[in-house]
Amino acid sequence: MTEFLRTEKLVKTPGTALHRQLFLVLREQITRGVYGPGAMLPNEDELCAHFGVSKITVRRALSDLKQQELIERQQGRGTFVSTRLPQAHPFEAVGFLDALKMRGRETQVRVLELRREVPPGAVALQMRMRSNEEAVYAARLRHVGDTPLIVTEAWVPLALGASVTVEELERRPLYELLLAQGVVFDRVVEEITAVLANPVYAKLLRTEVGAPLLRVTRLVYDTEGEPVEHLTLHVSPDRSRMLLSLQPKELEQGISSRIVHDPLLP
Amino acid sequence: MTEFLRTEKLVKTPGTALHRQLFLVLREQITRGVYGPGAMLPNEDELCAHFGVSKITVRRALSDLKQQELIERQQGRGTFVSTRLPQAHPFEAVGFLDALKMRGRETQVRVLELRREVPPGAVALQMRMRSNEEAVYAARLRHVGDTPLIVTEAWVPLALGASVTVEELERRPLYELLLAQGVVFDRVVEEITAVLANPVYAKLLRTEVGAPLLRVTRLVYDTEGEPVEHLTLHVSPDRSRMLLSLQPKELEQGISSRIVHDPLLP
Repeated sequence: MTEFLRTEKLVKTPGTALHRQLFLVLREQITRGVYGPGAMLPNEDELCAHFGVSKITVRRALSDLKQQELIERQQGRGTFVSTRLPQAHPFEAVGFLDALKMRGRETQVRVLELRREVPPGAVALQMRMRSNEEAVYAARLRHVGDTPLIVTEAWVPLALGASVTVEELERRPLYELLLAQGVVFDRVVEEITAVLANPVYAKLLRTEVGAPLLRVTRLVYDTEGEPVEHLTLHVSPDRSRMLLSLQPKELEQGISSRIVHDPLLP
Repeated sequence: MTEFLRTEKLVKTPGTALHRQLFLVLREQITRGVYGPGAMLPNEDELCAHFGVSKITVRRALSDLKQQELIERQQGRGTFVSTRLPQAHPFEAVGFLDALKMRGRETQVRVLELRREVPPGAVALQMRMRSNEEAVYAARLRHVGDTPLIVTEAWVPLALGASVTVEELERRPLYELLLAQGVVFDRVVEEITAVLANPVYAKLLRTEVGAPLLRVTRLVYDTEGEPVEHLTLHVSPDRSRMLLSLQPKELEQGISSRIVHDPLLP
């Protein structure tokens, strides 16, 4: 069995069944290309021995993989990674303009919520708002036809957002509406992290509760150094990835992305 | 109950218990600051009614939150978000140099694996390798004292990596060892996504199986346009976040990060 970091025996975790763990391990190996399209998976006995689980557990995990069309089981021959699986593409192939065009032209927006509200403490702090100061909250779902792509939740100061309507938000991106009011964007700071889908995001992004989501929190400043927009995006990694391409000059200037740690946390 | 996107009633999902779902929802609201440090959570009856679950489910979720020291239950008073929870910090506070220094000086490296191997198809494709061509695979765990921070898995062409030893890798970062061989780095492409911790990453990063992880895949090219390093990082969002700071000039030049979608997938 080809592997990189050796998989350990699975152990019971509260609230997560062994079949679900095995499903996650195998799905990860398939989507990551450890097993490519058409590759044969180890047989049931081998999987049982390798992961230290029962045949019932193995069959349930394989059945869930099959339901997601990641594998095909061929009577008497074995279990194979689906050949209809999209090939992992070299990621330089996707252009910036293509992505922008696609998002602007080929996607539609549904406004989920638009209201005044006191933002949670963390947002208020980042927006440098007084306690109990209201802001405009806009939640939107960006989709292509039937396929949901991004849930965005934006906070903008009342002075900038109070006049925005649902109709406008469905026609034009929020940043355009801010620009139209004379806001000049300056620095943008992004924080990227991973979260588990709660039932709301799972339903909107049509994924499972507990599936991984990518969360991008973006803070946009104007030329006065004032925060004018706090945006949180959630996307499903099944459909969306975040790309970053840096030229050597930018690397030297330290524009590169970086990972920071809070090492004091346990 | 303050909320942004309204939470729906919880529904059973194969392999993930309702108490686990409720735990995930509440943990997300706490770590995101919807409930700040010291805030009172709704009582058991309110949680039951809101999420449509039993008291046993609510108690189990609260007990798990308590075990993670996210909440404190005060006899006769109610349930409160832990005041020892780190305040959500405005993320501009962390400097690039600080992060670099910390990673270089204050972290240690443990080499988990160093061997020659044929990389999985997706890696070989991105590295433009011939099929069955071997490369050097190096897996490392970067940690501060007892606290694990990053699991890195690097692939480098045999010509560049064959002479690297475990001792060298524990003393110097891989990129320094490549530079010492005369490699000149050029463009860097990164892809960022979210995955669920499989048992291997969970153990190494000291998190739970099924917890969310941030995965960064980095492809480094030399000045000839040849891929010289394929690096995959996994970090736990409990301890690490990815930051990106962009000046207006860079935004205009299109260096900004972007999210791309594979909208043809279901």
